[in-house]
Amino acid sequence: MADGKGGMRKRVVILGGGFAGIHAAMGLGRLPLDVTMVDRKNHHTFQPLLYQVALAVLSPAEIAQPIRSILRDYPNTEVLMDEAVGFEIDARRVKLKSGAVLEYDYLVVATGSTHSYFGKDEWSKLAPGLKTLEDATEIRRRVLLAFELAERQMVETGSHPALNFVIIGGGPTGVELAGAISDIAKLYMKKDFRHIDPSMAQVMILEGSPNILAAYPPDLQVKAAEQLAKLGVQVRTGGHVTDIQPGYVMVEDEKIEAVVTLWAAGVQASPLGKLMGLEVDRRGCVLVDEHLNPKGRPEIFICGDLAHFEQDGKQVPGVAQPAMQMGDFVAKRIAKLTAQGLGSDGSGVAKGFRYFDKGDMATIGRKAAVAKIEWPFKAHWSGFPAWVTWLVVHIFFLIGFRNRWSVFRQWAYTYLFFNDGARLITGSQELPGWVEKEGVALPVAGAPLDMGSPKSN
Amino acid sequence: MADGKGGMRKRVVILGGGFAGIHAAMGLGRLPLDVTMVDRKNHHTFQPLLYQVALAVLSPAEIAQPIRSILRDYPNTEVLMDEAVGFEIDARRVKLKSGAVLEYDYLVVATGSTHSYFGKDEWSKLAPGLKTLEDATEIRRRVLLAFELAERQMVETGSHPALNFVIIGGGPTGVELAGAISDIAKLYMKKDFRHIDPSMAQVMILEGSPNILAAYPPDLQVKAAEQLAKLGVQVRTGGHVTDIQPGYVMVEDEKIEAVVTLWAAGVQASPLGKLMGLEVDRRGCVLVDEHLNPKGRPEIFICGDLAHFEQDGKQVPGVAQPAMQMGDFVAKRIAKLTAQGLGSDGSGVAKGFRYFDKGDMATIGRKAAVAKIEWPFKAHWSGFPAWVTWLVVHIFFLIGFRNRWSVFRQWAYTYLFFNDGARLITGSQELPGWVEKEGVALPVAGAPLDMGSPKSN
Repeated sequence: MADGKGGMRKRVVILGGGFAGIHAAMGLGRLPLDVTMVDRKNHHTFQPLLYQVALAVLSPAEIAQPIRSILRDYPNTEVLMDEAVGFEIDARRVKLKSGAVLEYDYLVVATGSTHSYFGKDEWSKLAPGLKTLEDATEIRRRVLLAFELAERQMVETGSHPALNFVIIGGGPTGVELAGAISDIAKLYMKKDFRHIDPSMAQVMILEGSPNILAAYPPDLQVKAAEQLAKLGVQVRTGGHVTDIQPGYVMVEDEKIEAVVTLWAAGVQASPLGKLMGLEVDRRGCVLVDEHLNPKGRPEIFICGDLAHFEQDGKQVPGVAQPAMQMGDFVAKRIAKLTAQGLGSDGSGVAKGFRYFDKGDMATIGRKAAVAKIEWPFKAHWSGFPAWVTWLVVHIFFLIGFRNRWSVFRQWAYTYLFFNDGARLITGSQELPGWVEKEGVALPVAGAPLDMGSPKSN
Repeated sequence: MADGKGGMRKRVVILGGGFAGIHAAMGLGRLPLDVTMVDRKNHHTFQPLLYQVALAVLSPAEIAQPIRSILRDYPNTEVLMDEAVGFEIDARRVKLKSGAVLEYDYLVVATGSTHSYFGKDEWSKLAPGLKTLEDATEIRRRVLLAFELAERQMVETGSHPALNFVIIGGGPTGVELAGAISDIAKLYMKKDFRHIDPSMAQVMILEGSPNILAAYPPDLQVKAAEQLAKLGVQVRTGGHVTDIQPGYVMVEDEKIEAVVTLWAAGVQASPLGKLMGLEVDRRGCVLVDEHLNPKGRPEIFICGDLAHFEQDGKQVPGVAQPAMQMGDFVAKRIAKLTAQGLGSDGSGVAKGFRYFDKGDMATIGRKAAVAKIEWPFKAHWSGFPAWVTWLVVHIFFLIGFRNRWSVFRQWAYTYLFFNDGARLITGSQELPGWVEKEGVALPVAGAPLDMGSPKSN
């Protein structure tokens, strides 16, 4: 397409509709460029709140929005629900799974990260992680189902397996999941069951390193451990998980029973870095320079979790804030490069990316959190003030006005009334490791059955 | 448990947590009885609004609520997520899938109905019906995915299959689905795509009998047909579907292309009637007398869609209203039987069930409906007034105060702002009948690919 100056409009392809990709697209959306956004999913997910879907506080639609509607008002932007499967880097072309081939002048790769089971991929079915809406509803299913199965097993046999929920990994996701499961069991479900006592549920975090929340300062690690202890969450650090089986987890030689096991231990980068033949670190993140370019590829930008960007000698963490800022930076840089007619070698645009760290937060149940605040002042907060801060910040950053207020209302309602509308089990009723009688044969109609002893009351 | 009069408390088992079962349970919940509610799902679904989940207007949590929380405040009631698989009728025992055996003094069977593919069960994968939340999200997935795949196929090849949505069955569900798909395509998505025009989507209803909405009076059938025509929905009556294949439907010898086919044609009763050895009609509904008892079984009550109850020479239809009323009736009758110490033979409780018909309604898109009103006055309404009536009635009947207002807000928002938060595709990206290239091999990193001709702009 002509740009009105006699040249052709530049084409930008963005791979990935997470925080980095969406921010890049929104930054590029009003420029005289043609933009194509490609994502496997049709929706952007607000990942920091995913654990609230997993624990039935929010519904999927409250934290996800179609990418197509987020970018609806940018007529220069098209959205494809598709997946990159091949690159011809020198020819500046990317091939999609459907077979389409896109040419680009600039390529933004922001396909993020996924769970890493450290080579034990067979663990993924037994201990799901939390990256997508599907993951969240699967975790919700397992946690809620454990209580249901315990109740019905009480009716059948008068006993049930201990309701142990084991979370592998003591980072922010592990801590948030642990706090939320504890809340559900101890507060929200207390009047729901007749035969089991949900508050007897035991939540345990297994962390291989010496401390939970390794990225936080030591004083907040201590506070977090205290707040978890108050909720009754057990924390075990320093032991490594050596096996996961239906119904239990092995930590070194010790067997820990678990009706539900969740994975929050490790992530690895999207495979696209390797697929493009770029230099990657051991987790698959692409090494990038100050302009977020991989070596020798000024037309390619790597953003978000996929980028290995070092600042002041430390790698910038794979969380939402740097991803958003990287997306914004890339949009601005492409704008400058094209506006100044500099081509794609970047000459004349000197300023590099710098991560502006406003802080980090993790909630611990419904009333506490830890917050390492870096801006507008420096502070370490914990407990209720940190929780309120977390609440405000997360509502503020929710993309899309409607979602923001809907989520706020939902939270307020849940907080005040222990609401339960989202507590739905969909899909299969199987739970790995739950011992149930199998092969109950359908008897002939009306014929007497060998039913054993009836339920006692 | 003792009832305080020296006798044992009577035990009631309710199978099924739909409208009939929930109403029975709520009616029995304050009485000196022990009640057990058994359902395969953990949630009650407000079925009349299920099509709005299927078409991405509402979220699952807005029309479903855990049965356990609906019945939370009745301490005499326990809820089991389980399934009846066998009966010993003379001994008054029911066996559940988990292996538990429940004894009862009264049994309420309200397990409803499911899709009937008239013996062609292989059609179920190609043309999903709409009975559960899982069905609704599957339909949502298919409808939304069709537009996504068309867009990406345009990019790849410059053309896409016609966006024909075929709905088999012209009853209320078929009509409501058709109107809602037409709305989505023509109103809600108009700014979302760059390469396809969603408003070119074609919705067709295939009805085997001579008229749509067979249960409605002829004048409203005509009105409904007019309103559907206004939305651009094609209606074909009188021809029978003889085959369903990926990508098309055969009506007699004519092939009708369909990117998505939905089933709203037939239902059959839950198999429990047959399993209990009771007398059933050809759809599996249990023939019941004026007290909703099957012949010779005054301790068993059949409610809702599973009941074949005749009034004034006609079978009461399998919709929400009679189900609720039957549930209420059964609770009252059991209350009388137990309070009067009459045993379970029913002597002394003369009054039988009578369905009080307040009318029927079906929406046609977002601004029209047909309503056959029977109470508090008799009238036939269509168009916008009928739609408003439908709205008020359905909000009023939503179980659970929170859901009621949440749904209302959601509707208002959607209506005014063409909201799109619920328009999420989760699960697989496959669509039966969609011709896509398969076996795209992942190339060696960085190696040149045979990519064919690049995308034209």
